[in-house]
Amino acid sequence: MRAPEKSLSHELPGLAADVLERLRARSPRVHCITNNVAQAFTANILLAAGAIPTMTLAPDEVASFIAGSEALLINLGTFDAERREAIDIALVTALDERVPWVLDPVFIERSEARARYARELVAKKPRAVRLNATEFAALGGSAADARTLADYARGNLTVIGLTGEADLVGDGARFTTIHNGHPFMARVTAMGCAASALTAACHAIEADAYVATAAALILLGVAGEVAGARARGPGSFAVEILDAVHGLDRATITRHARVT
Amino acid sequence: MRAPEKSLSHELPGLAADVLERLRARSPRVHCITNNVAQAFTANILLAAGAIPTMTLAPDEVASFIAGSEALLINLGTFDAERREAIDIALVTALDERVPWVLDPVFIERSEARARYARELVAKKPRAVRLNATEFAALGGSAADARTLADYARGNLTVIGLTGEADLVGDGARFTTIHNGHPFMARVTAMGCAASALTAACHAIEADAYVATAAALILLGVAGEVAGARARGPGSFAVEILDAVHGLDRATITRHARVT
Amino acid sequence: MRAPEKSLSHELPGLAADVLERLRARSPRVHCITNNVAQAFTANILLAAGAIPTMTLAPDEVASFIAGSEALLINLGTFDAERREAIDIALVTALDERVPWVLDPVFIERSEARARYARELVAKKPRAVRLNATEFAALGGSAADARTLADYARGNLTVIGLTGEADLVGDGARFTTIHNGHPFMARVTAMGCAASALTAACHAIEADAYVATAAALILLGVAGEVAGARARGPGSFAVEILDAVHGLDRATITRHARVT
Repeated sequence: MRAPEKSLSHELPGLAADVLERLRARSPRVHCITNNVAQAFTANILLAAGAIPTMTLAPDEVASFIAGSEALLINLGTFDAERREAIDIALVTALDERVPWVLDPVFIERSEARARYARELVAKKPRAVRLNATEFAALGGSAADARTLADYARGNLTVIGLTGEADLVGDGARFTTIHNGHPFMARVTAMGCAASALTAACHAIEADAYVATAAALILLGVAGEVAGARARGPGSFAVEILDAVHGLDRATITRHARVT
Repeated sequence: MRAPEKSLSHELPGLAADVLERLRARSPRVHCITNNVAQAFTANILLAAGAIPTMTLAPDEVASFIAGSEALLINLGTFDAERREAIDIALVTALDERVPWVLDPVFIERSEARARYARELVAKKPRAVRLNATEFAALGGSAADARTLADYARGNLTVIGLTGEADLVGDGARFTTIHNGHPFMARVTAMGCAASALTAACHAIEADAYVATAAALILLGVAGEVAGARARGPGSFAVEILDAVHGLDRATITRHARVT
Repeated sequence: MRAPEKSLSHELPGLAADVLERLRARSPRVHCITNNVAQAFTANILLAAGAIPTMTLAPDEVASFIAGSEALLINLGTFDAERREAIDIALVTALDERVPWVLDPVFIERSEARARYARELVAKKPRAVRLNATEFAALGGSAADARTLADYARGNLTVIGLTGEADLVGDGARFTTIHNGHPFMARVTAMGCAASALTAACHAIEADAYVATAAALILLGVAGEVAGARARGPGSFAVEILDAVHGLDRATITRHARVT
């Protein structure tokens, strides 16, 4: 099967700006089943972008929260019995109510039980999977390149958003590379988790899963560059990126975005 | 029943400054049963104000922690079996040891189970309930106005602290409106939870529940304005409000407080 | 038994700089069983120093995570059934795999059950115990002085790192006092927990437990002074100390360290 062609790369920065405008106009509710470490920063990234986060895990509540949400994030960073029960209920509700959901298979390379569970979740067809190269390998991807992403995405009917020095987004047919971001993004806990939550938020208001995923990574990557120019270290960077997400506008996005 | 009259509005800024001075002098221990998302920011707001937070939920410890505390916060933002068990034990101890407690019925409009549980807790007579207009409606308040607050507070023998663009405080007989705060307060996760925790801290050193509740909301509202003048976005705002709470003094409070 | 002599005090700042360089070069994986309140700040301190934090508690995963780690922190700040089970598994793995571990007996003075459990853990010979004077008293230390620390450390075959206005480190034979730090360190939640996590990280790359413990407290103390000079309050201090840990170099450490 031939490698996918670059798609929409010139249009994506403008589309990302469109997505952000709709996100602010509609303030979608995004339910996050995520790890304890990431909860507060994830909530703050979503609030800075204009979304409304909720995070409950209680079995008798999670269905009601998801039924009232426009998107769902499932992040495996805390992988306990409570969350596995919440995820089971959440996915039934998300399917019934047609709530788009995004998977973040955190640290699955460190635990075979977690990797197996992540593969089961991929089989339930998330709209997108946001992960890094090590996690993609543990999921079954043989290399972090365009062709492997395309094969994996096509085979699993999903979109892959693989973040790293450059971010790769592919849905099988289409593929793009985003060259934004800043090294401090790897020095702040939960930055990847927040990227996944923002991806879920973009799926709430954009039906094309490829565009929604690329838009989220462009928005966070550009915000990361704005923040990196102001920060003295990872502490101030974590603060500045929240301000930068809040302050993003079309001019900043189209000026900074480097998408090929 | 006639609407309550405005009470103490001119005195409240000075009383808030008194409360803050006593809070710093006595460093009350405030036990918080609160949600995972809010724990760190809540602890930091209490530390910035001069209180000592604890947050354990373990059934075999919570009674011992509360018996050694001067105030208790019960926040329903994480509504799981562990916290419900902790709350049951906590309220028995708080009653036995006469520890004042404050209820924050987070997101009860999103889950009927949570709303029902919140109504049961109100029947156990918290000194104050801190919430927003949507949560007040879910609790049974028909409108967020002076008369409705007064009726609800009188009927339930508590004080209502309803935060929003303006904050309303009423205990049935007395009523006041606080016009401080900043729009970024709605863009930082756990800001309402922190307001409730500060309310609990004020109850630790002020026996008049109406004054304690109004004082907490004046202190946080003024700190929010100081922070808002310095912040570029919600990230720096969350940092600045901690600095502002720490730096509050009588002159700043009385200059900025707008209480009618 | 005579009091221990001051040891290595002049060499310790240079040794701390050596430890930091190795920490950055090797990026050790540090698994933290810690409390919910502290998780995010702890992870960010470790990332700022160059280590890789993980925090899972799930019984079927914790052994696998610890087997892949170079150090382990056990912090009792959240003392629930889940963590007690995780700790049992963690200590078996740490012993089998010879992973050094550090104990932080948070708030044991507030709960006899927790203090008893902490004493059982000390009997399992952590490489170091990081605590404050109140916690040391609850553990059985009669006074926070050189002789008591030495007796306790010798009797329990561990190193004590006792933080406060000055930090004391002793292993029975050797003893030192670190005069760095800043008053805002007591006004930011999880600062002590982060000190313990950094202590664990230093044990990952330094076999002499006395040197590793002193190095961690020197590094955080110096970073605290750098941060304190820039901060306006505890909010900005928490941000600045992350930047300062990230920016530490040999010149800053040896210029600021006051070790006697």
